Amino acid sequence: MSISTTKPIGLFDSGLGGLTVLRELQLVLPEHSYTYLGDNARFPYGTKSVETIIRYSRECAQFLLKHEVGLVVVACNTASATALSILEQELPVPIIGTVGPAVREALEATRSGIIGVLGTSATIASHVYENSLRERDASIRVISQACPLFVPLVEAGMLEGEIVDKVIELYLAPLKAQQVDTVILGCTHYPLLLKAIQGYLGPDVAVVECSRAIAADVQRILANNRAPAGESTHTQYFVTDEVGQFNQLAALFLGERQVQAVRIESF
Amino acid sequence: MSISTTKPIGLFDSGLGGLTVLRELQLVLPEHSYTYLGDNARFPYGTKSVETIIRYSRECAQFLLKHEVGLVVVACNTASATALSILEQELPVPIIGTVGPAVREALEATRSGIIGVLGTSATIASHVYENSLRERDASIRVISQACPLFVPLVEAGMLEGEIVDKVIELYLAPLKAQQVDTVILGCTHYPLLLKAIQGYLGPDVAVVECSRAIAADVQRILANNRAPAGESTHTQYFVTDEVGQFNQLAALFLGERQVQAVRIESF
Repeated sequence: MSISTTKPIGLFDSGLGGLTVLRELQLVLPEHSYTYLGDNARFPYGTKSVETIIRYSRECAQFLLKHEVGLVVVACNTASATALSILEQELPVPIIGTVGPAVREALEATRSGIIGVLGTSATIASHVYENSLRERDASIRVISQACPLFVPLVEAGMLEGEIVDKVIELYLAPLKAQQVDTVILGCTHYPLLLKAIQGYLGPDVAVVECSRAIAADVQRILANNRAPAGESTHTQYFVTDEVGQFNQLAALFLGERQVQAVRIESF
Repeated sequence: MSISTTKPIGLFDSGLGGLTVLRELQLVLPEHSYTYLGDNARFPYGTKSVETIIRYSRECAQFLLKHEVGLVVVACNTASATALSILEQELPVPIIGTVGPAVREALEATRSGIIGVLGTSATIASHVYENSLRERDASIRVISQACPLFVPLVEAGMLEGEIVDKVIELYLAPLKAQQVDTVILGCTHYPLLLKAIQGYLGPDVAVVECSRAIAADVQRILANNRAPAGESTHTQYFVTDEVGQFNQLAALFLGERQVQAVRIESF
């Protein structure tokens, strides 16, 4: 599929988490424009059913297409794990999810072949990381762990301290016991807990964030399609619910940068 | 407003929490039929904006009216705090929220006049408990505390243990420091943490659950309207998202009783 030379790159997420992906893209591809949609009226996706996540993802992707994006990044692991293959069939533009890029990076990083995967309940229940890792290398051992308290902790602005450490121990002790040497952060909220997670796992365990791997994929697709950047670059932020909290927390995800989101009618 | 003699009592909540209210109603009024709607496709409400919570609450109430309920119980503190006065104006049947009954019970319980209120971010931001308590007794001191991690803990099935105790300490230490003698659990999820909360506060602090107070109000309204129970009683459960998790967790809220929910198309 060809990509327009001037169209922005679209991203969607159930809320704020996808901003970690946007941040990485803006670092690697600063000359591009971006359109970000955070569906915070229906946040979170990670506790919802497959059918509902697919419906929500379709609506988000359609919104981005109406805003004439040239490429869609599903900047949400839950939506990627659940809806990506369906969106790939339906959308007239290239689409990139979180799973493929993270799996590629994890396979490059592991030496022992024992990989841990952290994600929301929906992502872990989908087995998409496990299947994708073992499709590419059947010898890989995968230890998966749903971490339902991580997103609420991040959303509550709790990124360190005793409670965070106890929750990390609760979820990560089984991975440590199985001696994983690589851990995939399979949710775009989790990079905000990176310091505490890396602290618990120790410096010898590679922690894979999706955002860097996604940015590399987007870069490659754009290069293959010979799609140079548009002349004037800008980033637009849309949300389906409250703007105030989004703008406030966005600074946390984007590294203190201020944003002004626009509220749209929820679907 | 008159109440039909045979129509069921309708309840709605953003998910499971309202089942604690249903449970109490079924204990007090076992001869009535009930229609319960859990809007779990858009759960939780407590982190959403006022405008969005009002829209969701309207849609839930309309669904219950289509199912011919004779009375609507807003079994969700967030929706009660935000949308009750609007629904009262719009609905053709009596409507009961969580706030009024809980406030009445707290004022009966307090001796020192220092009352703590725990709730979701949206409920606490609405100041509805504070305003309602002080409207009835201007001498009351209110210490309010948003507890954004309580609902995720309950939904993750974590009702006791070290992490629960640490989170309770985090939220309740300010209330203890102010020497509250009464605490309102301003969220229908929180009664599941009652044991741990009461353990931290000690036996001399009265903990007010909305459910009992609501059941007393419903009983009074029915008596005033001379509305005897229908001849055959039954309870119907509707959800907007996954049935499996709802049925499974419902047993936790209803005291091990099994339910069979019906999934409806989300609004």
